[in-house]
Amino acid sequence: METQAYLNRLLNHDLNAPMGSLNNLLNEIAAQVGSGELPDYTTLQVMQDVSRRSIRLLAVISDIGKYQLHRALPSQEEILLTPLIWSSVAQFHEKGNEKDIEIVQDCDDSLTVFCDSYGLERVIQSLLQQGSAAAGEGGGIDLSSRPCPVIQGWVRIEVSYGDEPWPGEMRELVRRTPEKQAIGVDMNDRRLSLDMKLILTICAALGWGFSQENSEDGRVIFHLDVPGGAGRSAAGEDAE
Amino acid sequence: METQAYLNRLLNHDLNAPMGSLNNLLNEIAAQVGSGELPDYTTLQVMQDVSRRSIRLLAVISDIGKYQLHRALPSQEEILLTPLIWSSVAQFHEKGNEKDIEIVQDCDDSLTVFCDSYGLERVIQSLLQQGSAAAGEGGGIDLSSRPCPVIQGWVRIEVSYGDEPWPGEMRELVRRTPEKQAIGVDMNDRRLSLDMKLILTICAALGWGFSQENSEDGRVIFHLDVPGGAGRSAAGEDAE
Repeated sequence: METQAYLNRLLNHDLNAPMGSLNNLLNEIAAQVGSGELPDYTTLQVMQDVSRRSIRLLAVISDIGKYQLHRALPSQEEILLTPLIWSSVAQFHEKGNEKDIEIVQDCDDSLTVFCDSYGLERVIQSLLQQGSAAAGEGGGIDLSSRPCPVIQGWVRIEVSYGDEPWPGEMRELVRRTPEKQAIGVDMNDRRLSLDMKLILTICAALGWGFSQENSEDGRVIFHLDVPGGAGRSAAGEDAE
Repeated sequence: METQAYLNRLLNHDLNAPMGSLNNLLNEIAAQVGSGELPDYTTLQVMQDVSRRSIRLLAVISDIGKYQLHRALPSQEEILLTPLIWSSVAQFHEKGNEKDIEIVQDCDDSLTVFCDSYGLERVIQSLLQQGSAAAGEGGGIDLSSRPCPVIQGWVRIEVSYGDEPWPGEMRELVRRTPEKQAIGVDMNDRRLSLDMKLILTICAALGWGFSQENSEDGRVIFHLDVPGGAGRSAAGEDAE
């Protein structure tokens, strides 16, 4: 039941505010048009932004609820990782990321993963969203994949970007364990974005590893560790 | 956990659709203004309506979640019923009920209730909303209160309006019992509005009685039974 109270709090705190401000702007625009005035285009653009953001927040909250339930493990499948990363990046762009963010990919195309692909796409999208919110206009996000250096047979996806790094050194945010409450941060911490909450919820529900490192040159690096697939792909076989 | 899955379904089915259509209309308007055209005022009015509706739906869903939790009974207090009814009607009008609905009140001003007043306001508002959706333009809703004819010391609030009555006779929708699962209808029934779901959830959570009757002249009558207060008000004493 605790989780449902949590979900309700997200609805009231995180979704209510943008929907309310959208409504207020809409009333302003309607008043302008009602008096025969051409409405301010910039306001309309802000509204489009808030509207897209609200719909995205609703999806994030609904996914947090879904993965908090995790009565049964979601369907797991073996898939090639790189196409899933491409699709996550494409969806991130489609969902209206208006900042001019360059995403530099450096992926090992031979890697396969064995996991809930929907959850993985959502985590990658939320990592990009998190990075795009933190990086300034024209900032860049690096996205890479490689065999996990610490767990045999797993795959590591790394997302990094320039930011004011959080204080502290390397932090293990979610331990690799099938236990549910393995999240190493306070989920009620106000500095956590909804996207970070979704990432933590999915990783904890599925037993994935998730940690954060601050590099010496001021970049934030997130490591996401997921189970690798049994076999390498054809491309992988070529490379061997 | 079942209740959280239910809440998630409401978010996806009932809230996602209006927010999506609001977003689409907004894009249309922005395109018009972008090409120097004055946007269509009727479309803006539709958008205001959808926006208000979305915010209302969010509040209803969040309240359904809140009352489904009901780990502890909400704070109960003894209050005069009629001012609470006035306030519910006022809030119903404020929340943008654009239809020209006349609400005819016939209340016993001496009545007090002993209950969670927030829950009672929400139920009355949702009954009015339900009635306003069903009644045609210019239709009327009757709202009355009197001592409950079937339970000593309780109070009956009655809301009725002309509608295509549901088939069947008198139905006890929520039995008076503190047990939680006393709802006499299938909560997944697609004909149930979100408002009706909120009414059923609150009544079941708080042990109130709720039933429906179809009168011979084609009106739908809802009976809401809540515990009466210990004492009658000053007005009540005058009447005795």
